[in-house]
Amino acid sequence: MTTYWSDRYAQRTRNLAGSAIRELLKYTERPEMISFAGGMPAPELFPRERFREAACRILDNPAAGQSGLQYGPTEGYLPLREMIARHTARYGIRARPENVLITTGSQQALDLVGKLFIDPGDRVLVEAPTYLGALQAFDVYGAKYTSVPTDDDGLQTGDGGLPMALAGGAKFMYLLPNFQNPSGVTMSLDRRRAAVALAGEFGIPIVEDDPYGQLRYEGAHLPPLLKVDCEMRGDRGADGLPGGNVIYLSTFSKTLAPGLRVGWTIAPPEVIGRLVQLKQGADLHTSTFIQQLVHEVARGGFLDAHIRLLRQAYRERRDIMLATLAETMPPEATWTRPAGGLFVWLRLPDGMDSQALLQAALEKDVAFVPGNAFFADKAAGRRYCRLNFSNALPDRIREGIRRLAGLVHARLAVPESAA
Amino acid sequence: MTTYWSDRYAQRTRNLAGSAIRELLKYTERPEMISFAGGMPAPELFPRERFREAACRILDNPAAGQSGLQYGPTEGYLPLREMIARHTARYGIRARPENVLITTGSQQALDLVGKLFIDPGDRVLVEAPTYLGALQAFDVYGAKYTSVPTDDDGLQTGDGGLPMALAGGAKFMYLLPNFQNPSGVTMSLDRRRAAVALAGEFGIPIVEDDPYGQLRYEGAHLPPLLKVDCEMRGDRGADGLPGGNVIYLSTFSKTLAPGLRVGWTIAPPEVIGRLVQLKQGADLHTSTFIQQLVHEVARGGFLDAHIRLLRQAYRERRDIMLATLAETMPPEATWTRPAGGLFVWLRLPDGMDSQALLQAALEKDVAFVPGNAFFADKAAGRRYCRLNFSNALPDRIREGIRRLAGLVHARLAVPESAA
Repeated sequence: MTTYWSDRYAQRTRNLAGSAIRELLKYTERPEMISFAGGMPAPELFPRERFREAACRILDNPAAGQSGLQYGPTEGYLPLREMIARHTARYGIRARPENVLITTGSQQALDLVGKLFIDPGDRVLVEAPTYLGALQAFDVYGAKYTSVPTDDDGLQTGDGGLPMALAGGAKFMYLLPNFQNPSGVTMSLDRRRAAVALAGEFGIPIVEDDPYGQLRYEGAHLPPLLKVDCEMRGDRGADGLPGGNVIYLSTFSKTLAPGLRVGWTIAPPEVIGRLVQLKQGADLHTSTFIQQLVHEVARGGFLDAHIRLLRQAYRERRDIMLATLAETMPPEATWTRPAGGLFVWLRLPDGMDSQALLQAALEKDVAFVPGNAFFADKAAGRRYCRLNFSNALPDRIREGIRRLAGLVHARLAVPESAA
Repeated sequence: MTTYWSDRYAQRTRNLAGSAIRELLKYTERPEMISFAGGMPAPELFPRERFREAACRILDNPAAGQSGLQYGPTEGYLPLREMIARHTARYGIRARPENVLITTGSQQALDLVGKLFIDPGDRVLVEAPTYLGALQAFDVYGAKYTSVPTDDDGLQTGDGGLPMALAGGAKFMYLLPNFQNPSGVTMSLDRRRAAVALAGEFGIPIVEDDPYGQLRYEGAHLPPLLKVDCEMRGDRGADGLPGGNVIYLSTFSKTLAPGLRVGWTIAPPEVIGRLVQLKQGADLHTSTFIQQLVHEVARGGFLDAHIRLLRQAYRERRDIMLATLAETMPPEATWTRPAGGLFVWLRLPDGMDSQALLQAALEKDVAFVPGNAFFADKAAGRRYCRLNFSNALPDRIREGIRRLAGLVHARLAVPESAA
């Protein structure tokens, strides 16, 4: 029985690895598991009734129903693109529908950006740590990475940080300024300005990934890099965005529901045109019906009201996770205090390994994502754990953190090598 | 105003062109346009009421609604994969859910197959003509093509045809055996056997694309290459498919609705595993809710009954198109007589150019796709027109073909060079 496939894989897939998170999802489906692993929203807060009404309204209407079930334009459903352009205008950016491409989740935007820009061996400048799904999307196009360290104010833009990295050259920078995945940290306004200025100086553009920007639980909203760039370049005339040096990605996954797979990209029309050509070959277009559904659910101020509700619920869960960590973890462990988003980033005591801790935690029905998956240099993250606080109910958060802290204490008592 | 993006595009996108069909869709949205251009199903036949009921049922149920709106497994929604495996079993193939990957339309399967197998410069063996979306998907990975001619019995497998092409080497063959897009021709059983045997002999696997197999309007169903391969290899034990030399692609786009973007791939588990890793980076997974919706609409025998209705309606439209062509076209024009699917392939009189004809046709509010887009060697198709008969109502089909025939007659009277 000869199999002809396995010796025919393309070079680009030789070192392919599955996502650590996706593999973990298999465990976390068990109901007894307290999962801090996925970046999953709280399912009980999905506006299910509103979705039901919207789906009925679309499918009751012959014209809307027929067009929702038919092929649609690759660029996306025009009323949804218009809604996103209006929303972007809140930041003082004059985006027009021609600046907006609807993607099948913002993961697809990462894939299309990789396909459009990365030649094998090209460098991409990333934060350390960074979103593992971006590494996965870029890896397949042969990206090499330059990692720039982050701290509590996000990407380090000072000497030895960003400028040195940029001097080495890169195809683009990939940055998550708000409540970063996985670290939860937010780039300060000064650092945003510095990063955009340096990007201009070195002629290296920025891909800004902002899935969580709307989910801020304290403090004032900071302008996206897209806006900082427009301001600095004085580029706010009739042309607005089109000459911009920033491609901006976002999604409805965290504000409405990830099971929809609807994200968007804002970019100069020339770049949008190229991405559209690539999206034609990738999946023709994102489901027409799902785009109509998102528009019908979101419109009339519903999305804003729903985001207010999410902020309240997730703020409470974040506070409970932070308080329980403070109560239960040994002083040798530290963690970030995110102002928004979905994640706390836990740094284990010196010498403790998050992969080994995960194995022990799974036996206690607790899951998290070990840090190494989030570094272009995988070995760099062995000491870190990404903890999601949006998915589990408050009591389960308390219980899960207690179990995790118990394991950390036990490992402190017995050195890792003996464990 | 510096734009840094445009000089940074990857090599693979330098010669990128948009799809001729997608560009034409802009014209065909005008209601007065009689479009034979897209491969679009009849919108008035979409089972809109059934979709409405199914959507309500899913979203009324807290557990189903919550899981439909949440992240799901990359492989796809298990009940849908099970349904597809059961359906495949009708052909006598023991596919299991582990052999099935749900994709975002079967266009995504073409992209993932290209990503998994094609290194820049690799040859892909294709039919001449072939599906332009496959060329678009493979182009970006640097494919070169060997085109094998087709006739009324599909791919020419005799001397000088397939064996010579295979001897030149290829990463895989990409074949559409049923009511091929664009030509409408069907590969005979003898040719299926010959192609599969030659594939085994030369050690070159097959990607079988079968979007239309269910839409047969006359004659007996022929086994897919997947089954021919299993039979020839005697490979029907407990392991069934897994060692197979054929990857099979299909979709719900033509039987339920293309606006859903749900297709599937059947392959050995090892290949499915690789495709899953690539799909993680491409869009994480296909919309959970949409997959539930497809399952809920299709189940209980509905899909089979709906396909019977489509067969009846599309058979009538095909017959009207063929009859009107026979009544109106000059004897210098010829065309295929498809036993199923969505397309008739018209060959214009010697020296007549389908691109020039399209310009004249658009002025008369008639659209079709010029043939050159369907050939790896673009110049080869200048004499052909792809005519879709599923989308327009019978009277509009008659009227559109009459207008087209009028233009052909006029061009016969005035030589092309003078037109």
